Amino acid sequence: MDCTEVLNTLESVIGQSDGFVSLHEPTFAGKEWDYVKECLDTGWVSSVGSYVDRFEEMLAEYTGVKRAIAVVNGTAALHVCLILAGVEPGDEVLLPTLTFVATPNAISYCGAIPHFVDSEEATLGLDPHKLSDYLSEITEVRGHECFNSKTGRRIKSVVPMHTYGHPVDLDPLLEVCERYKLVLIEDAAESLGSYYKGKHTGQWGKLSALSFNGNKVITTGGGGAILTNDEEFGALAKHMTTTAKVPHKWEFRHDMVGYNYRLPNINAALGCAQLEQLPGFLLCKRVLAQRYQQAFADVDGLRFFTESENAMSNYWLNTLLLDEPSSEKRDELLELTNGSGIMTRPCWTLMHKLPMFADCPRMDLSVAENLEKRLINIPSSSSVGGHHV
Amino acid sequence: MDCTEVLNTLESVIGQSDGFVSLHEPTFAGKEWDYVKECLDTGWVSSVGSYVDRFEEMLAEYTGVKRAIAVVNGTAALHVCLILAGVEPGDEVLLPTLTFVATPNAISYCGAIPHFVDSEEATLGLDPHKLSDYLSEITEVRGHECFNSKTGRRIKSVVPMHTYGHPVDLDPLLEVCERYKLVLIEDAAESLGSYYKGKHTGQWGKLSALSFNGNKVITTGGGGAILTNDEEFGALAKHMTTTAKVPHKWEFRHDMVGYNYRLPNINAALGCAQLEQLPGFLLCKRVLAQRYQQAFADVDGLRFFTESENAMSNYWLNTLLLDEPSSEKRDELLELTNGSGIMTRPCWTLMHKLPMFADCPRMDLSVAENLEKRLINIPSSSSVGGHHV
Repeated sequence: MDCTEVLNTLESVIGQSDGFVSLHEPTFAGKEWDYVKECLDTGWVSSVGSYVDRFEEMLAEYTGVKRAIAVVNGTAALHVCLILAGVEPGDEVLLPTLTFVATPNAISYCGAIPHFVDSEEATLGLDPHKLSDYLSEITEVRGHECFNSKTGRRIKSVVPMHTYGHPVDLDPLLEVCERYKLVLIEDAAESLGSYYKGKHTGQWGKLSALSFNGNKVITTGGGGAILTNDEEFGALAKHMTTTAKVPHKWEFRHDMVGYNYRLPNINAALGCAQLEQLPGFLLCKRVLAQRYQQAFADVDGLRFFTESENAMSNYWLNTLLLDEPSSEKRDELLELTNGSGIMTRPCWTLMHKLPMFADCPRMDLSVAENLEKRLINIPSSSSVGGHHV
Repeated sequence: MDCTEVLNTLESVIGQSDGFVSLHEPTFAGKEWDYVKECLDTGWVSSVGSYVDRFEEMLAEYTGVKRAIAVVNGTAALHVCLILAGVEPGDEVLLPTLTFVATPNAISYCGAIPHFVDSEEATLGLDPHKLSDYLSEITEVRGHECFNSKTGRRIKSVVPMHTYGHPVDLDPLLEVCERYKLVLIEDAAESLGSYYKGKHTGQWGKLSALSFNGNKVITTGGGGAILTNDEEFGALAKHMTTTAKVPHKWEFRHDMVGYNYRLPNINAALGCAQLEQLPGFLLCKRVLAQRYQQAFADVDGLRFFTESENAMSNYWLNTLLLDEPSSEKRDELLELTNGSGIMTRPCWTLMHKLPMFADCPRMDLSVAENLEKRLINIPSSSSVGGHHV
C-alpha cells in the first residue's frame, strides 16, 4: 500500500477543501432554525414540550416500531434497555469487543459484567456462528435461563452493535437468542437508516438504542432513543426516564427509582428538523460511499468496506480495510491524512484491552483483533464531495 | 384561613392574566437566539464547543468556585459528586426527607442507601442541630470514618438541599461534618444566586450540584453543573462526565468506567445567554417576593416564607406556610387556585414515604412531616407581576 496514493484517492473524492475535512459533521439545511426559535419564543425549551412528542412519533414511524422514547443520549438509552431486559447486578451480558465504550459502560451501570464476543469481517459486527459454538461449550440452559458454567453467573442478554451503520447478521443471532434464552438488545446507535433484510435495524431486538450525538447521521446536539415493539416496555421506559413521577394535577409522587434521562424540547426540535432531512442525507451518503468504492477499486493493499448482501447500510462512517501486509502502515496513513487536513481514525481500542474491562470474561477474539489493526474510517459527512441534495 | 382571600391576594400581586400563570417559566430576553443560531450556523451543536467552555467559566466566576463542569442535568451532577466523594455500594448517605426525588435517586445509583434527616422551619432545609444530636446517638467514629452502630454500615456523606433557594444553616452543618468525618455535598439545584453569610451556595461543600432545568432560575433546556474548589476533583469530574477518554490525536482509549453526561454546546449557548441575565432575574424575583410578603402580611392563617438572617435567597419558588389549624384547608386552596388559573403546588411527597425508600434508615422526621402539610408554592417567574428589568 502506498500511503500517498491513498491520500490522493481520498482527495479525488472529497475535492478541494480550504480547511479541515472532519470525519462526520452535521448539516442544518432544513427547519432547524424555525423549530428551535419556536421553542425560544414560546418558552418551551425543557423536558415537556410538543417537539418531544413529535420527535418520538416521527422516530417510531421511520424505524417501524410501536414506540420510541427520546432520551438524553445513546448511553442512557442502552442503560434503560438493559434494565428493562431484566439485567441484574452480577449477570453477564454478551457484546462485541469491537464497539464504542458506551456499550460496556451501560452494562457496568447495571452492576452486570460485560462478556466479550468476536466479530466477523463480513459485517464488522458480532459473529453469531462463532457465538453459537462458544455458548454450546461454556453454558448450561436451566429452565428459561442461561448460565455460564465457568463463572456460575447468569447470562441474561446479548447486545450486538451495528458497526459504522452496517447491520449485524441478525437472523442467525435471533436463533442463538432463542436457543440460549437471551434477550436481544440492539445497540443501533450508529445505524439509523440501516436495514437488515428490508426491516430497519432496531426492530429486531426486544429493545434497541439509537444515538443522535453530533457526529451521527442526524443530531439533536446530544440525544438518543429507546425503540421497542412492546407497549408495556414502551410505557415503562417513558416512566423510568422521566423520574418515575406518578401523574397527578399537583402532587409530586414517584413510585420507583427513576432516571432524569429526558431529552429537552429544544433538542427534540432540532431532531424533528433533522429527521425530515434524513432521506436526503442517506442518499448523499450512499453516493459518497459509491464514489469511494469506485475510487479505491484500483488501489492496492486495501479495500473499501461495503454492505453485506442482507443489508442496506446508512454508511455512517465509511471504512477502509487494509490488507494484512499493509496493516503495519496504518499509523503512517493516519499521520499522513490527518496531517494533510483530512480526518481519519482507527478502530476504537478493543474493549477487552481497556483497564476497567481487562478482567471480564471473553471468547477468542482473533477476528476483532485482526480488524482493529486494519481498519480506518474516512470522511463521511453527507456534505462531503458536494453531493448535498 | 379564608381560601378566597388568599386567591384575591395572589391575584393582587400577579395582576390580570389572560391565561394560566405557571409556577416558574423562563424568560428569553437576552442573546439566546444569537448564541443558539451561531451554534446552528457553525455546526457546533454537540458535546464539544466553545459555549461549553464559556458557560463553565462563567459559572465558576459567578458562584466563586475554582471549577464548574457542565453536565446534562442536576441529577447527573449529584451522581458524579457522590462518586467523587467516595460513596461506595453499601454506604449510607444522609439527606433531608424534604427534597426532590433526584437527591435519593442519585444516592441509589451509587448502590448506597439514603438515610433521612429532619428539616428545620427556619430554612426549610436539613436541621444541623437535630442531626448532630442524632449522630451522637447512633454512630461511632473509627479513624477517619463514621459508622452507623445500628446497621454497621459506613456513613460517608451528607447532602443538604437548599429548598426553593433558601440556604441551609451551613456553619453548624460544617461542624457536624468535621466531627463525624462526613463529606459535605451541597444539592444546590435550586439555589443558583443564593448566598449564605455572603458566600454563594455551592462553595461550602467539597462538591456541589446545580440544575438548569426548564423551571429553574436560569435554564439550558435541561442541564446541570458540578462545582468544586478542588482542582483534582474538577479535572476528574470533567474526565468522568466525558466518557473518560484519554486525549490522543486519533486513538480512542478510555481508562475508567465513564459517563456520557456532557452538556451539548447548543444547551450551553442558551446557558451563557441566560447567565448574562441572572442579576436582572434575581432582582425581579426579590421584588416579587417583597410584594408577596407585603400583600400576605395581613392575611390570617398563613405566612409568606422569607429568607433566614444568615441568608440571601434567590427566592426560586415563593412559598406560603399555612398555620397549623389552616393546614386542613391546603387541598381546598390548591383546588381553588389551580382552578382559577394560578398554579400552586404542595411540597414534594416526603422521600421516606415513597415505596422505594420506605425501608431506608431515618431519624425522627416530625418537623418535615409538619411542613409537608402546610407548605404551598406560588407563582415565582421573574416575569410575574410585570417587574421585568
